Amino acid sequence: MNGAEALVRTLLGSGIDMCFANPGTSEMHFVAALDRVEGMRCVLCLEEGSVTGAAEGYARMAEKPASTLLHLGPGLANGLTNLHNARRGYSPMVNIVGEHATYHRVYDAPLTSDIEAVAKTFSHWVHMATEAGSVAQDAAGAIAAARRPPGQIATLILPADVAWNEAPDGPAAPPAIARPEPVEPDALRRAAAILRSGEPAAILMTGRALRATSLDVAGRIAAATGCRLLAQTSNARMERGAGRVAVERIPYPVDAALKTLHGLKHLILIGGKAPVAFFAYPDKPSVLTPSDCEIFTLARIDQDLEAALAGLAEELGATKHAPAAEPLKRPAPPQSGPITPETLAATLAAQLPENAVVVDESISVGRAFYASLRNAPPHDWLQLTGGAIGDGLPLATGAAIACPDRPVICLEGDGSAMYNIQSLWTQAREKLDVTTLVMNNRSYAILKGELANVGAQNAGPKALDMMSLDKPDIDWSALARSLGVESHRASTVEELNRALDASLAARGPQLIDVVL
Amino acid sequence: MNGAEALVRTLLGSGIDMCFANPGTSEMHFVAALDRVEGMRCVLCLEEGSVTGAAEGYARMAEKPASTLLHLGPGLANGLTNLHNARRGYSPMVNIVGEHATYHRVYDAPLTSDIEAVAKTFSHWVHMATEAGSVAQDAAGAIAAARRPPGQIATLILPADVAWNEAPDGPAAPPAIARPEPVEPDALRRAAAILRSGEPAAILMTGRALRATSLDVAGRIAAATGCRLLAQTSNARMERGAGRVAVERIPYPVDAALKTLHGLKHLILIGGKAPVAFFAYPDKPSVLTPSDCEIFTLARIDQDLEAALAGLAEELGATKHAPAAEPLKRPAPPQSGPITPETLAATLAAQLPENAVVVDESISVGRAFYASLRNAPPHDWLQLTGGAIGDGLPLATGAAIACPDRPVICLEGDGSAMYNIQSLWTQAREKLDVTTLVMNNRSYAILKGELANVGAQNAGPKALDMMSLDKPDIDWSALARSLGVESHRASTVEELNRALDASLAARGPQLIDVVL
Repeated sequence: MNGAEALVRTLLGSGIDMCFANPGTSEMHFVAALDRVEGMRCVLCLEEGSVTGAAEGYARMAEKPASTLLHLGPGLANGLTNLHNARRGYSPMVNIVGEHATYHRVYDAPLTSDIEAVAKTFSHWVHMATEAGSVAQDAAGAIAAARRPPGQIATLILPADVAWNEAPDGPAAPPAIARPEPVEPDALRRAAAILRSGEPAAILMTGRALRATSLDVAGRIAAATGCRLLAQTSNARMERGAGRVAVERIPYPVDAALKTLHGLKHLILIGGKAPVAFFAYPDKPSVLTPSDCEIFTLARIDQDLEAALAGLAEELGATKHAPAAEPLKRPAPPQSGPITPETLAATLAAQLPENAVVVDESISVGRAFYASLRNAPPHDWLQLTGGAIGDGLPLATGAAIACPDRPVICLEGDGSAMYNIQSLWTQAREKLDVTTLVMNNRSYAILKGELANVGAQNAGPKALDMMSLDKPDIDWSALARSLGVESHRASTVEELNRALDASLAARGPQLIDVVL
Repeated sequence: MNGAEALVRTLLGSGIDMCFANPGTSEMHFVAALDRVEGMRCVLCLEEGSVTGAAEGYARMAEKPASTLLHLGPGLANGLTNLHNARRGYSPMVNIVGEHATYHRVYDAPLTSDIEAVAKTFSHWVHMATEAGSVAQDAAGAIAAARRPPGQIATLILPADVAWNEAPDGPAAPPAIARPEPVEPDALRRAAAILRSGEPAAILMTGRALRATSLDVAGRIAAATGCRLLAQTSNARMERGAGRVAVERIPYPVDAALKTLHGLKHLILIGGKAPVAFFAYPDKPSVLTPSDCEIFTLARIDQDLEAALAGLAEELGATKHAPAAEPLKRPAPPQSGPITPETLAATLAAQLPENAVVVDESISVGRAFYASLRNAPPHDWLQLTGGAIGDGLPLATGAAIACPDRPVICLEGDGSAMYNIQSLWTQAREKLDVTTLVMNNRSYAILKGELANVGAQNAGPKALDMMSLDKPDIDWSALARSLGVESHRASTVEELNRALDASLAARGPQLIDVVL
């Protein structure tokens, strides 16, 4: 077998059986190997932001890395932004990046670039394969790195001749799966002491601490001690809704975040980072906690967050306390009138299907969605973790591939949707049950507020022009259909209800142009 | 005035009055400055590949750099691929990349990344501004770097507080424009001796050597010495067509390139690089020149190519020889039948408007276009220079902005078109006279040949699936209209003629879905 086949078999041996791809000439041997080896599903995306974003969404829901296949330095470069987002959300990923044959690089052909330098910008682990005989071991190294807690980006660069030369030893053995480090017993005792102090305290969580079973434990701790439960502003995945313990998210706007954290004397981090402003603004603080709030890291993100919560509950004798699980409350859906952020939030609360995966990249329009879905049927909530907009459609694509039996709802800003709009085609090709709601307000609405927030007063016409997406209006229904996605247009609540009914009843991807 | 305003005024002082932008919160002060300062045109693009690609197209035609405005590391990352292409085509560019306020970086907010590392991957010059008082000088440094022959990528990182703080000294003086280095007289004598030797020789050109006036000189040299005139496979801009001296391009396929270069004993480089294969293939050479061909560099790309040609003609006494300028030949357009690469090439030759700017990213379908337009009315020919596909629509956008009085024709593969499809919206917004012909063969057709070329025989269904763009077919007409571009569908030669007639007569962007 050749190097490419040894590589594919090594991936499969570790259970990595999903590959999101946009290949070129230098990756043809990897592609050819897919037909000689059973078991690797390969999904084509039309540009690389869709590739890496889909791999990210897949990893969040499948709880294991996907592989990606990218075409040399520029192909990788197009996918970097969603590596940034994946990195910020601790999603594992194994990128295979093609490269010129080792002996060809010296000639500096047009597509030559410093792929290692490109890869290092947003990967935790980078390796350039040098021979077919060792590429399987290289792949095992990439897999081990990707799975290192809390989840890492591993990028293996595969020169064409390494792929096509004979690999006499075949695939490598699957590397052991590394367990996250446990927290120190002393840290548990200190955290328990803080929570017993009676001073205003909160636990700030992200990562696996936001799964239902951990939230149940956190709920017991809150019941026993009166502490508050907080989540980061953005989280890769949260299990929430009816029957689960609700967590307050730190809001994005600085003033609202300060208000949320006001009065806290103690903040215990379980995976979370000390809360800071998303951007700096003149005359607003970067640090969001009160100056007299003491921050204690009980568990770093690479530690065992579930065990940390369990250990803390044990230490506090809280395991028998009853957590405050949310009741199911289905509001009656609004029946008529214009679509506003509020009526949209209420409609979602009324209509959200059971067991949905909700991808939220709704930016300014969606600020009320999180609260409104607190008592909806149980669902997963996936957010943009790195702030680099455009991740929503690819995330939904990957999540739907990981969870073929669950409805995926993608709440997407119109500005954000345009970065990786190509993902719609992949949704159609793979017949994925994704319903995308595009918040069509014909602007980068968040920037209008931010312009004032940063002190750039009295915006003139040129500045406003940089935030407006009209001239021309994008016809979202036609755009979706042109890429094979069924679509609906809703400019009233009645139309929105009808469009949601139709979309949720249909199979295959749907897009609703939600005109605000 | 604040740092942002000092920066904008410094750009304007050097004649950089064009900015392609996709800004975010950290760039709001730059955006606000646009309304306080007269003269900077700012064009919004919906993702950053369209930003940098448009800046590249603008630079090729305007013969000066545009500026870009990008949102932190991820915004820059999305634009890297077309920086790669611009770099390979020697197009100057001044990128302004927003960054968190200097004091905010330490907090590692979600959008934080190592922007300098990202920028360095494809920029010649990178600088992180540190204070408002010096940002104008920084900008002057960026401008000087961008203009350094043959044209460079300069990236200035602009922290938000550097933009919003007071800049007491205002804008900086425009830096001097560097002239390209002349070639050595001795090199001219050696090149002349080679051409006088009577042995089979060719001149290989790119860059400014491919403008009409230089080609006229090259034509005189060819007339005097019998040498052949060659151009690189890909060139940023070539002036060609009737009344101009034609140049043979080295073909992309290795076998065809070997045939073109067969028998040559001497190759004189004027800006061009020694020809090598675009990719490596097992059992094919990387170096394309015959083993006994001597390569002589008369002028590096950063030297004065026009003066090199003029000096060589002088040295050879060739200035009075008559160059073989191409006659105008308008073939009768095909009247009926299916659209094939051949009928399409003939139709273009019959219909190409006077003084067009042709952007060619037609990949496999377009292999006959270059030859077929040899005797068309004078036009500029712009190619993908770095091999990272997706540059065509942004290039056409930037070229149309630089040349508002010229028709721009974009010959675009369907696979390639999808990388930066968002550029269509900017063409509509700016009402640009671009006619895009999408070569709709529903596949990455080039890869089907490449799969065999690299020796991956007997492609199976999974491999072929990675090259097919059907399932679903993209509805190009609907896609274009959804983004505000008028569109036409042509699946016969009759329909193609009608669509071209209508498109070329209309104002504003047009797209023709050319169904092959």
